[in-house]
Amino acid sequence: MRYELYYWPSIPGRGEFVRLALEEAGVTYIDVARRSGRSGGVPAMERFLDDAKLAGAPFAPPFLRAGKLIIAQTANILLYLGPRHDLVPRSEAGRVWVNQLQLTIADFVVEIHDVHHPIAASLYYEQQKEEARRRSKYFRTERIPKFLSYFEQALSAGGRRRHYLAGATRSYADLSMFQLVAGLRYAFPRTMQELEPDCPGLVGLHDRIAERPNIAAYLASPRRIAFNQDGIFRYYPELDG
Amino acid sequence: MRYELYYWPSIPGRGEFVRLALEEAGVTYIDVARRSGRSGGVPAMERFLDDAKLAGAPFAPPFLRAGKLIIAQTANILLYLGPRHDLVPRSEAGRVWVNQLQLTIADFVVEIHDVHHPIAASLYYEQQKEEARRRSKYFRTERIPKFLSYFEQALSAGGRRRHYLAGATRSYADLSMFQLVAGLRYAFPRTMQELEPDCPGLVGLHDRIAERPNIAAYLASPRRIAFNQDGIFRYYPELDG
Repeated sequence: MRYELYYWPSIPGRGEFVRLALEEAGVTYIDVARRSGRSGGVPAMERFLDDAKLAGAPFAPPFLRAGKLIIAQTANILLYLGPRHDLVPRSEAGRVWVNQLQLTIADFVVEIHDVHHPIAASLYYEQQKEEARRRSKYFRTERIPKFLSYFEQALSAGGRRRHYLAGATRSYADLSMFQLVAGLRYAFPRTMQELEPDCPGLVGLHDRIAERPNIAAYLASPRRIAFNQDGIFRYYPELDG
Repeated sequence: MRYELYYWPSIPGRGEFVRLALEEAGVTYIDVARRSGRSGGVPAMERFLDDAKLAGAPFAPPFLRAGKLIIAQTANILLYLGPRHDLVPRSEAGRVWVNQLQLTIADFVVEIHDVHHPIAASLYYEQQKEEARRRSKYFRTERIPKFLSYFEQALSAGGRRRHYLAGATRSYADLSMFQLVAGLRYAFPRTMQELEPDCPGLVGLHDRIAERPNIAAYLASPRRIAFNQDGIFRYYPELDG
């Protein structure tokens, strides 16, 4: 099956969690909004968002077209791709755990975004800078440590350090964790420098994912979109303490 | 199987989405933190949250114990219960759609909570009242209408008004939608009075769910926790415009 991914063309954002899964699986996909021509670009994506008669319409990007199915919500897309492309354990317990992790990552991603947009997504950062600065203090000192220590602990459940979050084999949650660590390093370099010594497992996981052949090739390709000041992970020094 | 639900005992919160599914399904469950005695109360819940060696540990309540499995994240719990208790369609497309809706409801729930806590969950409302008031303006005029009109449209995909979000039969997403409408009416009565004429489908859905025998019996029982000023849905007149 040839997948079509629909996501904003200029940011890694939530679409990147899906891209990493597709790339690791080595499947063919079209990144529709990044394609030029009549069948590409943002209008090709907005067609689905504005279609009042579409069954299963997405609330927001990313969404994936897989044959007749249109699948929205990042964790839902990954839940669909996981078993089809060997990106989750075979056991039910393993799949429940990976989805649980992915939803916790999604919660963290909302908080990361809302640090620079605590008042409204429709306002510019500059219009909510003061509130952002206030929120960032709690985010840096309470939320980042809480999430990272949870994920670090998830890597060593039962007391033994594991290579991946669901055991010996990588799952899509590991790919998302790679992106999370990379994004936090971009957005909060000082904070991460302080916190990373406390989460050696996550740092190791990040490096192991980056070195996987398909991921390494992807990261070196023009398909990978660099972090920038329009996405979820943005670098504002004043928010980094 | 006898389920054990773990959630804060004094608020409906996210636990309520799980309770509604268990009640509608008519299955036996123990609401552990609401039980008195040595095996109940909040300590019985915190035992799982503080256990650094527990595999599959939850990041936060609610979580469900089902035999050996511990399942956290509301949408993940519902995904697990759905096919076991006839709370989702049989088709894959139907299940993908219900999970997609549930995750969009979860996104909305985060925004609803953050209206009264835009700076930090660890601060009191009174400590972030000014920011909350500013955020509430955008929430009332942009976000509530956007989410409600999306869900209203989801009820009439393809142009025909449907009884339930996934077609002719109720799913767990419909139960959650009932709770969402009820909670918004509690927290934003003025705003909802203005908006409800634009979403007759959702109002009808709310009423249909409330009248289902198991749900009606549950709502009239002491097991149902009333909305109050500690949960996700809180009534602060100054945030209702």
